[in-house]
Amino acid sequence: MIRADSPTFLGFGEIYFSSVHFRSVKAWKRNAAATAHFAVPVGEISMALFDNRPTSPTCGHLETLTVGRSQYVLVTVPPKIWYGFQGLTNPEALIVNCLDRQYDASQTDRLEYPSETVPHLWPELE
Amino acid sequence: MIRADSPTFLGFGEIYFSSVHFRSVKAWKRNAAATAHFAVPVGEISMALFDNRPTSPTCGHLETLTVGRSQYVLVTVPPKIWYGFQGLTNPEALIVNCLDRQYDASQTDRLEYPSETVPHLWPELE
Repeated sequence: MIRADSPTFLGFGEIYFSSVHFRSVKAWKRNAAATAHFAVPVGEISMALFDNRPTSPTCGHLETLTVGRSQYVLVTVPPKIWYGFQGLTNPEALIVNCLDRQYDASQTDRLEYPSETVPHLWPELE
Repeated sequence: MIRADSPTFLGFGEIYFSSVHFRSVKAWKRNAAATAHFAVPVGEISMALFDNRPTSPTCGHLETLTVGRSQYVLVTVPPKIWYGFQGLTNPEALIVNCLDRQYDASQTDRLEYPSETVPHLWPELE
């Protein structure tokens, strides 16, 4: 997934697993200071990232990508980027998150999905 | 899985995923210098560990344990301990290995299973 000499590796704080059920959405979250690295070793998810940092050259940019069995990529999410995902595989997908610092609830912002702050809606899957 | 302040955390070198099919055996391996941390977030495995370090107080000791959905434990394997596993769940189990240093093939010993060096046989599963 990631090595200490990987170009995107910034340090090790914590690694944890979570899962998302088929059709379910987990969104939106934003880390104040942590950089997160996501991999999906089982199943597949649709991931959305939204940059609304006022001074960012990509402010206002939304990106969606499919992560998992069709492409085993590692997704790096910098601090202050909103992110969320939808499960695409039945019964669930496994998400591994490796953070450069330990999880701190006071350093995590959340918005209930859907939100007018983040301009993305996932489709209702059959 | 593990945090930088976990009592068994020694540093971060690499994290990788592997899988083991139902009934298959992956054995034996031994790291010369690396400490490994194993978790099984999907499915279940039978893991065996064997200590034949001449100066160890547990020299000659074999330990087997079930890791995965019936008990989500983190297994720490020190350097110079032989280890291997059998898949217990259909179609496979997912193994996550977090190492305190980067993988180095020249620092990994292997024995073909079964071996007279490590006194353990897994059952043939139906």
